[in-house]
Amino acid sequence: MASNPDELVRSFISLLSARDLDAALVLVSEDCEYDNVPMGKTHGPEGIRAALTGFFAMAEDIEWETLQQVASGDLAHGTVLNERDDRLRLSGSWRSLPVCGVFEVRNGLITLWRDYFDRETLMKVMSPGGAS
Amino acid sequence: MASNPDELVRSFISLLSARDLDAALVLVSEDCEYDNVPMGKTHGPEGIRAALTGFFAMAEDIEWETLQQVASGDLAHGTVLNERDDRLRLSGSWRSLPVCGVFEVRNGLITLWRDYFDRETLMKVMSPGGAS
Repeated sequence: MASNPDELVRSFISLLSARDLDAALVLVSEDCEYDNVPMGKTHGPEGIRAALTGFFAMAEDIEWETLQQVASGDLAHGTVLNERDDRLRLSGSWRSLPVCGVFEVRNGLITLWRDYFDRETLMKVMSPGGAS
Repeated sequence: MASNPDELVRSFISLLSARDLDAALVLVSEDCEYDNVPMGKTHGPEGIRAALTGFFAMAEDIEWETLQQVASGDLAHGTVLNERDDRLRLSGSWRSLPVCGVFEVRNGLITLWRDYFDRETLMKVMSPGGAS
């Protein structure tokens, strides 16, 4: 169990990086907002599952690395911002999506996950012949 | 004078929002890296000045709002991440660029300013007929 918002978000990213959606989604609230800023939002564990299942299925490997993370508050009411290198392997090559994430924590669960990135970079990352 | 990294970055953003580049650039180191992630990097006060002068000149008004900010460390060695709504007015209409910023502070100065955003959204924000 996480003892603070920093640990909670690190666990969440680590479980997603392992593509363990079932375990990751236990950490989000029923009304959790998942906002991929340049693309749109989904809500709740099943919204996140729907958004990520296809993405995870197409990747040969996933490695999301948290480069920096800063947190405030506690598990009752906390905020976490992180800078990540979300890498995936596709067609045998590793590609990198630079991301900044914003997380809000309420009552021990993640209630907001908002990722900032460049949409065009994601499209390149996900294309079979995409550049790294 | 800022007494911690949180205050230093808030002052920096506030001075930039007021388009007071001279005062803002006093707060960055000589080798400060300014990285607009999907577009490229410049370095030092004069690099930042060159990158922002034209941008500020074309805007009828600027308002950069910090929505959330979390900091760690102290002025000797600190890290700040923030989520911002960088708005500018152009052709009479306000446009909005959602941004996440990463800042590193060393010896009382900003040594890294890295902004994550969607390049295509910025292009729309800056086009004379661009959508908000």
